[in-house]
Amino acid sequence: MSLHRMVLSRSWTLAKYFEGAPKLSDFKLKEVELPKLKHGEVLVEAEYFSVDPYMRAYSKRMKEGDVMMGTQVARVLESNNSAFPAHSYVLSSAGWTTHYISQGKDLTPLLPNWPDNVPKSLALGTIGMPGLTAYFGLKEICFAKKGEIVLVNGAAGAVGSLVGQIAKIMGCKVVGSAGSDDKVEYLKEIGFDEAFNYKTVSSLEEALKKASPEGYDCFFENVGGYFSEVALHQMRKYGRIAVCGAISLYNDSVPRKGEYVQIPLLFQELRMEGFIVQRWLNRYNEGLEKLLQWVVEGKLKYHEHITRGFDNMPSAFIGMLKGDNIGKAIITAK
Amino acid sequence: MSLHRMVLSRSWTLAKYFEGAPKLSDFKLKEVELPKLKHGEVLVEAEYFSVDPYMRAYSKRMKEGDVMMGTQVARVLESNNSAFPAHSYVLSSAGWTTHYISQGKDLTPLLPNWPDNVPKSLALGTIGMPGLTAYFGLKEICFAKKGEIVLVNGAAGAVGSLVGQIAKIMGCKVVGSAGSDDKVEYLKEIGFDEAFNYKTVSSLEEALKKASPEGYDCFFENVGGYFSEVALHQMRKYGRIAVCGAISLYNDSVPRKGEYVQIPLLFQELRMEGFIVQRWLNRYNEGLEKLLQWVVEGKLKYHEHITRGFDNMPSAFIGMLKGDNIGKAIITAK
Repeated sequence: MSLHRMVLSRSWTLAKYFEGAPKLSDFKLKEVELPKLKHGEVLVEAEYFSVDPYMRAYSKRMKEGDVMMGTQVARVLESNNSAFPAHSYVLSSAGWTTHYISQGKDLTPLLPNWPDNVPKSLALGTIGMPGLTAYFGLKEICFAKKGEIVLVNGAAGAVGSLVGQIAKIMGCKVVGSAGSDDKVEYLKEIGFDEAFNYKTVSSLEEALKKASPEGYDCFFENVGGYFSEVALHQMRKYGRIAVCGAISLYNDSVPRKGEYVQIPLLFQELRMEGFIVQRWLNRYNEGLEKLLQWVVEGKLKYHEHITRGFDNMPSAFIGMLKGDNIGKAIITAK
Repeated sequence: MSLHRMVLSRSWTLAKYFEGAPKLSDFKLKEVELPKLKHGEVLVEAEYFSVDPYMRAYSKRMKEGDVMMGTQVARVLESNNSAFPAHSYVLSSAGWTTHYISQGKDLTPLLPNWPDNVPKSLALGTIGMPGLTAYFGLKEICFAKKGEIVLVNGAAGAVGSLVGQIAKIMGCKVVGSAGSDDKVEYLKEIGFDEAFNYKTVSSLEEALKKASPEGYDCFFENVGGYFSEVALHQMRKYGRIAVCGAISLYNDSVPRKGEYVQIPLLFQELRMEGFIVQRWLNRYNEGLEKLLQWVVEGKLKYHEHITRGFDNMPSAFIGMLKGDNIGKAIITAK
């Protein structure tokens, strides 16, 4: 007879569908006692949580009462599954939940060559989904080439800050837009050629023209709305627009309107493509190895905006949506 | 001493930039006497003229007083250039002008294997720029594949009617939208699987859903505006939108607004691309040979909306922009 340690799992659930900007009262904490592990099962304990814009965009895919969706870096506490030995680290898609019993299908081991001096939380950011999004988006949607000019908005965010740095590694000129002077300073620190605060420039059109009088070959779109309307007119012939996100639109309950895109698309023969990184699932390893290598070589700098404590997850999420973070928004379990 | 025949050239010029829909008073007829041919020069006489939506879209690229832009099928009257012998037929980019002296750079011979029983005016339509636009747009922008579902608006127009037929040749299901019941009937005659009159359906969304409950893989966009806003939400995962034209928007002096496209592009990972057929200039022969072959085999049916007389070109242009034509709008010189 084995001694069963009682494990309490705490989860943040979606109490109520968001209307406009998410509020603290939209979330509810739930506790359940986890059963004993069965054959093939693994008990994981979260160490780092991630909050990302997609959780707002796809919130309607959850039901009220569901545990909030998301990925975490977790440690295996107990294991009846040799693929995930005790004490090893995994990426888990358990969502906003502290402890979780898995049959292994929704767990991924961290890269085996993950160095000790690289924080494991980067598996949620630079060497994780946001890093892969920047990498594949630039490579396979923007087709960014050496010497081209890349524009990215939400540039100080988890994805945007990597887009700029990877585009620099690829030999591009990089222009970034962000929503505070601190963020703009950060962008210059990590190597952006030009950066501006879109909230304080007198004319967005002039700011874009000043940053690159020749226009833009690639536009990595994280924001949507008015910014993209203006940016579209600054694209060069055959320009590519990678629509990775549209954070400024996610809270709209009635779709907001802007200039129809057909005329600018036609006149400059532009291509605009929405994408979700899961498209390259079978190439994740290629991307992760590259990202890890760049981090180890110091070519890719990371900055994490860390909130301490699982209890603060809803407020960290709300803050991320408002743009509080520079770099990746991470929540530690304790 | 050679006898110089006096040749009078008549041209329609852009008297005044269009404001909104073009009016007869925006055009002015000019006459000039042509000089004697010099070495290397060719005198051509127009037989068929073309009016196309792009002439409205790009009208700002002309100056007031310029001869209206455009392509014509012309006959060589006199030639000092062995590449274009007298009596041969050429495509000429002389614009809206009856007689023209060229050094040959803006002339293209018709396909050498052009059969006698195929009207030469098709070089302005089915076996010309509109045909190439449909062919390359479907092949290289839509990447239409056998078994896929293709939507085309402005479907009874010069390009749209070819898009539908070529997509059928490619093995697709084809749905077309047009602006009159006569046009809808024509679409069914030439093999569209489904067609509807967008002006009389009670709900565009319902009409699109009814025509293809599974949604659409490809959308060949000729119209822009509200139609495309609704159609975007009916696209299937990884759908491709070829933006070939936006005829409903060309007359706007202030850009009209619609729902931002980022959210639908993201959710279904759609690609939307503007294109101009000149992109494939070095592959025109491939396309023209194919189009001619399909016409000869009876797989590609053509319908021309013919206006008689050069004097009526402005009204033919105005009518085409209003959608008077089924198939290609052609004007005969005499």
